[in-house]
Amino acid sequence: MKIRPLGDRVVIKKIEAEETTKSGIVLPGSAKEKPQEAEIVAVGPGGVIDGKEIKMEVKVGDRVLFSKYAGNEVKIDGVEYTILRQDDILAIIE
Amino acid sequence: MKIRPLGDRVVIKKIEAEETTKSGIVLPGSAKEKPQEAEIVAVGPGGVIDGKEIKMEVKVGDRVLFSKYAGNEVKIDGVEYTILRQDDILAIIE
Amino acid sequence: MKIRPLGDRVVIKKIEAEETTKSGIVLPGSAKEKPQEAEIVAVGPGGVIDGKEIKMEVKVGDRVLFSKYAGNEVKIDGVEYTILRQDDILAIIE
Amino acid sequence: MKIRPLGDRVVIKKIEAEETTKSGIVLPGSAKEKPQEAEIVAVGPGGVIDGKEIKMEVKVGDRVLFSKYAGNEVKIDGVEYTILRQDDILAIIE
Amino acid sequence: MKIRPLGDRVVIKKIEAEETTKSGIVLPGSAKEKPQEAEIVAVGPGGVIDGKEIKMEVKVGDRVLFSKYAGNEVKIDGVEYTILRQDDILAIIE
Amino acid sequence: MKIRPLGDRVVIKKIEAEETTKSGIVLPGSAKEKPQEAEIVAVGPGGVIDGKEIKMEVKVGDRVLFSKYAGNEVKIDGVEYTILRQDDILAIIE
Amino acid sequence: MKIRPLGDRVVIKKIEAEETTKSGIVLPGSAKEKPQEAEIVAVGPGGVIDGKEIKMEVKVGDRVLFSKYAGNEVKIDGVEYTILRQDDILAIIE
Repeated sequence: MKIRPLGDRVVIKKIEAEETTKSGIVLPGSAKEKPQEAEIVAVGPGGVIDGKEIKMEVKVGDRVLFSKYAGNEVKIDGVEYTILRQDDILAIIE
Repeated sequence: MKIRPLGDRVVIKKIEAEETTKSGIVLPGSAKEKPQEAEIVAVGPGGVIDGKEIKMEVKVGDRVLFSKYAGNEVKIDGVEYTILRQDDILAIIE
Repeated sequence: MKIRPLGDRVVIKKIEAEETTKSGIVLPGSAKEKPQEAEIVAVGPGGVIDGKEIKMEVKVGDRVLFSKYAGNEVKIDGVEYTILRQDDILAIIE
Repeated sequence: MKIRPLGDRVVIKKIEAEETTKSGIVLPGSAKEKPQEAEIVAVGPGGVIDGKEIKMEVKVGDRVLFSKYAGNEVKIDGVEYTILRQDDILAIIE
Repeated sequence: MKIRPLGDRVVIKKIEAEETTKSGIVLPGSAKEKPQEAEIVAVGPGGVIDGKEIKMEVKVGDRVLFSKYAGNEVKIDGVEYTILRQDDILAIIE
Repeated sequence: MKIRPLGDRVVIKKIEAEETTKSGIVLPGSAKEKPQEAEIVAVGPGGVIDGKEIKMEVKVGDRVLFSKYAGNEVKIDGVEYTILRQDDILAIIE
Repeated sequence: MKIRPLGDRVVIKKIEAEETTKSGIVLPGSAKEKPQEAEIVAVGPGGVIDGKEIKMEVKVGDRVLFSKYAGNEVKIDGVEYTILRQDDILAIIE
């Protein structure tokens, strides 16, 4: 089975990192969302999305940081993926 | 009876999947909406929607993933359909 | 008395359907708004609405599905109508 | 004293209707705002409002339906008027 | 001391009106904001505000109705003024 | 140390005014934000900000009124400044 | 490992400042977000972001003030960085 994202969406596969969770108390000064690492597995065609020309800047195989709560999770052939918009990709790791 | 969606809307028919519901506790790290599988049964004409040119990229028969809470459910001749905007379609499954 | 909707608005008359209400418990998986059937009784001229060119795609006599909570209800000569924007019409039933 | 509305605003005078209030229980299926009847007493010049060209489509003397909670009430020479934007006028009654 | 408003802002001086306050119970049917009378004492230059060309349509000395909760109050040389955007002016009283 | 604001931002230094605070009861009729006086100490270059051409209309040394809760406070070399967008400047005092 | 931000994003490294925290009582008059100092370590290419041409105005090595709660924190090779949009940079310190 193959998944082809529409518009400016991409499909990514998370790279699990060791999580050294600290105590549960949330301090205001650090109440930021931590991005997560992933690999791009499919890239939409881009084009005119919501009236704006979107050029895709990531490609299959790129290792990226993405906003952890962005997108929709989907399980295909038993593997978990996330489908999100390219704009939710923060950076490429090289 | 036939249903003809307006503008950038599409009519889909859900493909029921086995749901292996886990315990009811929601963990922040996985609090994402799971998309659902469906088949496209009718596609609107697209055109200028809300001042923006929308080109329809899905066609009748496509198997798609869509955002589960998007759109409006409707029962026609005893069968349940969902009417949603093309932008709520995440990806085509091939 | 005649009612002439402004801009991209239409006047519709609901077609009452038998409602087989289930138990009152709302399940997250089906918490969607059900659209309702109606007949179009008056159509505004369209034109430039909020800076965007709107072409009217429905006509008097069309049987449509609309978003149940959209629009404003109005009683004219003892008959109830709903005035809503064309964009709240989901599909035409043929 | 005369009142001259700015931009796309109009001044209307409500036409009081008999209100047959039902019991206080609000049912979800009918929780819609009821529009009210009024007569147009002054019309702004229209023009470019918020960067968009607005053409005034109502004129003094028109009997209209408007969204009941829209606009600002104002009392001039002891008479109550409502000042609202043309877009809050739903339809003209003929 | 003189005050020169920026962009599409105007400076107004309220005209105090006798307020015949009714009982404190707020009825849904009349829960609208009452506009207030004022005199224009300074007018900004207009121009391109937030990417849109704004032409000033009020002038110093105009008696206007404005939305009571709009704008910022300021006391200059012991006199209270309100600085607001022209769009918060509802109408000119002649 | 020198601070150079980006885009349409300006750096201001508040001018402390005597505050004759009244009793703590907030009356709905006067629940408006009071602007504050300040002197402009640095002005950004303007230019295309968020897709819109912004021309800077204030200059270093201008005495201005600004919306009290706007912007970000910053302490440089022990002195407190506020960095805000030009649009949060209400008026120039001359 | 190298991190390459997408679009109008930049990667910054915070410069820790001594924090002389006062008592925990928050006074309305000073309830503003304090910006924080940082050094720019990577700059995205800019370009057309969300349909608007964004020119990058900061460069690697710039010492900047940024809005403390903006962006996403990320730890690379044991060092903490923040990824944010250029628009969350308030000013350059020289």
